[in-house]
Amino acid sequence: MRETDGRSYSSRPVLTINLSAVIENYKFLAAKVAPAKIGASVKADAYGLGIIQIGKALYGAGCRTFFVAHAGEGKILRGAIGNQPNIYVLSGPTPQDSALFFGSTLKPVINSLTQARDWIKTIDGVKRPPRTALHFDTGLNRLGIPSSEIEIFVKEDGLMDALNVDLVMSHLACSSLQDHPLNKQQLDLFKRTAAQMPMVNLSLANTGGIYLGKPYHFKLVRPGIGLFGGTTTDTPNLEKTRPVIELHAPVLQIKNVNKGETFGYNALYTAASHMKIAIVSAGYADGLPISLSGTDNAVISHARLGKENAPIIGRISMDYTILDITNLKKYVERGEKAVFFGANLDTQAKQAQTINYEILTHLGQRCKRVYIRDGKE
Amino acid sequence: MRETDGRSYSSRPVLTINLSAVIENYKFLAAKVAPAKIGASVKADAYGLGIIQIGKALYGAGCRTFFVAHAGEGKILRGAIGNQPNIYVLSGPTPQDSALFFGSTLKPVINSLTQARDWIKTIDGVKRPPRTALHFDTGLNRLGIPSSEIEIFVKEDGLMDALNVDLVMSHLACSSLQDHPLNKQQLDLFKRTAAQMPMVNLSLANTGGIYLGKPYHFKLVRPGIGLFGGTTTDTPNLEKTRPVIELHAPVLQIKNVNKGETFGYNALYTAASHMKIAIVSAGYADGLPISLSGTDNAVISHARLGKENAPIIGRISMDYTILDITNLKKYVERGEKAVFFGANLDTQAKQAQTINYEILTHLGQRCKRVYIRDGKE
Repeated sequence: MRETDGRSYSSRPVLTINLSAVIENYKFLAAKVAPAKIGASVKADAYGLGIIQIGKALYGAGCRTFFVAHAGEGKILRGAIGNQPNIYVLSGPTPQDSALFFGSTLKPVINSLTQARDWIKTIDGVKRPPRTALHFDTGLNRLGIPSSEIEIFVKEDGLMDALNVDLVMSHLACSSLQDHPLNKQQLDLFKRTAAQMPMVNLSLANTGGIYLGKPYHFKLVRPGIGLFGGTTTDTPNLEKTRPVIELHAPVLQIKNVNKGETFGYNALYTAASHMKIAIVSAGYADGLPISLSGTDNAVISHARLGKENAPIIGRISMDYTILDITNLKKYVERGEKAVFFGANLDTQAKQAQTINYEILTHLGQRCKRVYIRDGKE
Repeated sequence: MRETDGRSYSSRPVLTINLSAVIENYKFLAAKVAPAKIGASVKADAYGLGIIQIGKALYGAGCRTFFVAHAGEGKILRGAIGNQPNIYVLSGPTPQDSALFFGSTLKPVINSLTQARDWIKTIDGVKRPPRTALHFDTGLNRLGIPSSEIEIFVKEDGLMDALNVDLVMSHLACSSLQDHPLNKQQLDLFKRTAAQMPMVNLSLANTGGIYLGKPYHFKLVRPGIGLFGGTTTDTPNLEKTRPVIELHAPVLQIKNVNKGETFGYNALYTAASHMKIAIVSAGYADGLPISLSGTDNAVISHARLGKENAPIIGRISMDYTILDITNLKKYVERGEKAVFFGANLDTQAKQAQTINYEILTHLGQRCKRVYIRDGKE
């Protein structure tokens, strides 16, 4: 069997991250929501894609407001994008994180009356403490000020002044489900709440919320997945953003296998006839969900080899995945790139019974990350 | 509602990795297989736990042979454990990785005749090239020399001499399934193959293979998950290794919720009566599989709060998880630690419809990693 090739390749898988596509997605969403502005959600290391590189690219494209989950993430981002942009920390302050807020001028998102009072104590005597956002829970029942506390924020003397609020926000629970009644309920409650607040900027929409239309945009929208090439709504062809990532891994070995032989751990897939397979150098440690494994009951997904699809067979293992190349027209050689995700990201997330967000955040640190801009590495 | 507390905490989740437990597990397995030796599988950053810290701990405990998947992983490990130990690279050499093998004295695992011939070309003229392992595929149908090529390895003049083999190995497909017939078939084929090879060390067993008994141990066993506290076999109470990791995240907020309200994205869980919930600062970006989410159809899993279990309700989100604390005896305060995995790792992996290996390799980089030794950080 001819199996050598002249090309040079490493066994290490490669994750390509197209910064030009991120910027295009930013511009597309910015145009869609104008005059509202974009506050980019770059928490969890920009959904696993690298907060420094993504932060710089978005800043370069004009983004001036960012959201992270933890103060530590904010500190890293601040180092990358300089002192001008707003960085809000969604978890709000905790006793141990206060110093990070001052040191990196991070704006805490206040999620409860207790957090508000703690913050006011924390900034006592601090010169020019960061301004804050108030986050009202309008139906997600996750972090956020509950309705029962609104009146205190409105009425208590000096509380709002001390907090020096510059943004009032809430977060949608069902923006991916365009017709869910909770969307309108949250919008209405948010408006009623905001009407009692000082005249500051308002923000409600995540990526899904952008597609719910103008009434949801207010002054600032907070997309994450839409910037990173994933779709989130249940409406086909609604979202016109571009894919950002691809996972590439080389074929390490090609094999001929006899009828009746089994593949991979626990022998979950059996050759129904003679087969030709390719062993690819990426597994679940690199971010391929084990739930994409192909068994005798069902082949779930595939990798792309050139322009063809090669089914994933057997259990995906930590470092390797087995592809069925029996019926490919292409002659597959060692070193050939197998491609996962990319334009197929959302489909493969569904096949894996998860969401594209989880796929992105589980992309392995072992992958060599290659950032592409204007078609170049 | 009393919700403050005096303790200091960060919103950042913490992953504790108990190196003393890793060492105990190593010693337990070493005693079990003696006089066979342990070759530790530390690929994929030691299953996500940190190849440098794990490598050093195992080396300190006496481990002198290690397996990684890629040459790049071998280079990092070599820097941590010095020049003496054997480091085998399971993927074998590729054109671009050759320099790493020489630079860090990594031993390639040869998986095919083509790879063997390429390696021989690569080492032409190299003074004292690393010795190699031969990996025969005895039924996993993943990487490894197929049966059809054995005769060439046995008969071709000079081939074995040029490779300077010091280990002959294979890998079990079904060692987690103690009674699977493939185990014995692979053992028999491995013995027949090895009988034709020069007198070098033999290795077949992964963690599951260790528990298949002495005939599977040969000179070297290659446990991974067993060192890291996960069980792998289908037989309860067979594996006596200790848990190694725990994921801790603080409660950021406590809320009272009315009957009929819903929780989290897509409103997948509904309060059947008044409830008290805790919002915890860890989500799927930190390694909690979204498949542990609790819906109206089924609550799947829980976190531990002190000695009690708090059900996970609603969809786990990227950064946060909602716990039902309505029925807890304990008075839960902000800053309280919610604990995931630990002694519960294998159960939670099953609840998430995956395996403990995938849980470990998806533990988020955002978690602060705290290494514990002799009870101290």
